Amino acid sequence: MRIAFVIGTAVATIKNEKLRGHKLLMVQNADPSGKVQGEPFIAVDTVDAGTGDLVVITEGSSARQTDLTTNIPVDAVIIAVIDSLEISGETTFRKE
Amino acid sequence: MRIAFVIGTAVATIKNEKLRGHKLLMVQNADPSGKVQGEPFIAVDTVDAGTGDLVVITEGSSARQTDLTTNIPVDAVIIAVIDSLEISGETTFRKE
Amino acid sequence: MRIAFVIGTAVATIKNEKLRGHKLLMVQNADPSGKVQGEPFIAVDTVDAGTGDLVVITEGSSARQTDLTTNIPVDAVIIAVIDSLEISGETTFRKE
Amino acid sequence: MRIAFVIGTAVATIKNEKLRGHKLLMVQNADPSGKVQGEPFIAVDTVDAGTGDLVVITEGSSARQTDLTTNIPVDAVIIAVIDSLEISGETTFRKE
Amino acid sequence: MRIAFVIGTAVATIKNEKLRGHKLLMVQNADPSGKVQGEPFIAVDTVDAGTGDLVVITEGSSARQTDLTTNIPVDAVIIAVIDSLEISGETTFRKE
Repeated sequence: MRIAFVIGTAVATIKNEKLRGHKLLMVQNADPSGKVQGEPFIAVDTVDAGTGDLVVITEGSSARQTDLTTNIPVDAVIIAVIDSLEISGETTFRKE
Repeated sequence: MRIAFVIGTAVATIKNEKLRGHKLLMVQNADPSGKVQGEPFIAVDTVDAGTGDLVVITEGSSARQTDLTTNIPVDAVIIAVIDSLEISGETTFRKE
Repeated sequence: MRIAFVIGTAVATIKNEKLRGHKLLMVQNADPSGKVQGEPFIAVDTVDAGTGDLVVITEGSSARQTDLTTNIPVDAVIIAVIDSLEISGETTFRKE
Repeated sequence: MRIAFVIGTAVATIKNEKLRGHKLLMVQNADPSGKVQGEPFIAVDTVDAGTGDLVVITEGSSARQTDLTTNIPVDAVIIAVIDSLEISGETTFRKE
Repeated sequence: MRIAFVIGTAVATIKNEKLRGHKLLMVQNADPSGKVQGEPFIAVDTVDAGTGDLVVITEGSSARQTDLTTNIPVDAVIIAVIDSLEISGETTFRKE
């Protein structure tokens, strides 16, 4: 699963009806210290994540395995908000 | 899901019969301000998107989860037309 | 779906028995004007495409959604032969 | 399947409930001699792997084919701990 | 499907039990003349391929569509051994 940073939101009035009520968040890959990199993309939120959170993103058919996203045309979903990352015994990220 | 810009259309007379009646749009990844980048690809339209729209694209098996694309051999579908993108409280894109 | 150019063929005597009778074509990504780029890969043909054709390729589980490829271990299939591509009202490719 | 090195752990209190009890490990691609490269990501452990292990990672829907991950929204799972890698008759990696 | 070169083997004592009895081969992408490039990865063999063979690799859920890999957590499988590749009427690779 990708480690990504929630950077913003997307608003769409015209959309597939299965998406109604779902929050579309803009996310961007993050390195282990929480710095963003690469190209932003959109993920559906399932854990009440907000801008500024470092999150775990599941992609592909597995994105449809949450109760909120069953049978919905989404390929990326936020499944966790990261509290901390530890590499070789050293904490590289801690949620403020 | 990818954020992409609809840049054109593809016409194909010889095609899998399950594709008949489907609009094949050419799309290209977009950065948060709506500038295109990267290599164009083709997505099936399900929300009456047109050239110039910034859209949300679902890929993989999830692309078959709309009523229009069930059991069809497509791996990318347009599921929403973006009205606006907001990053850190600032609107980076707004549909004209 | 990718836009690709059919560049050649692969011959394989030793293969999974579900592949018997399927044509293995070598394809390579194409830009909107039909110029090839990137690394070649192999796709199963379902529309009688030939070397020189610009085609549409579906990947992943969706590649198994044609009548010819149901339950077959293939992850890329040619689903259409492109007649023309149009970008912003200008034809960038037309089949000869 | 990717060859990756386990480099650390992620802690997340707020997460999809299907993830409870699962160990989220940070992993990073490895070259044949075991040197890391590229961007870290997160995989669920199913074989009691630990930091410092070189492992095999299965992605996509196949990540849900272990007894521990059935119907769970994860797209990367550790399925083996590598003892050794051999290239052209030469051992390029051996677990210490 | 990718065109890849079998470059070696991986040995793993600790692994998911569904993998027991499966040969884990190290493979690396190949260009049309059979030269390797890019990062090695691991594929399960289903056609008795060996080091030095140029092979066809199916990835994703389609990798579980062979009789040997049904319901197994693998995302890449060797489905054919390539005899020859032909580009624009010229043979670019022939198995020795």
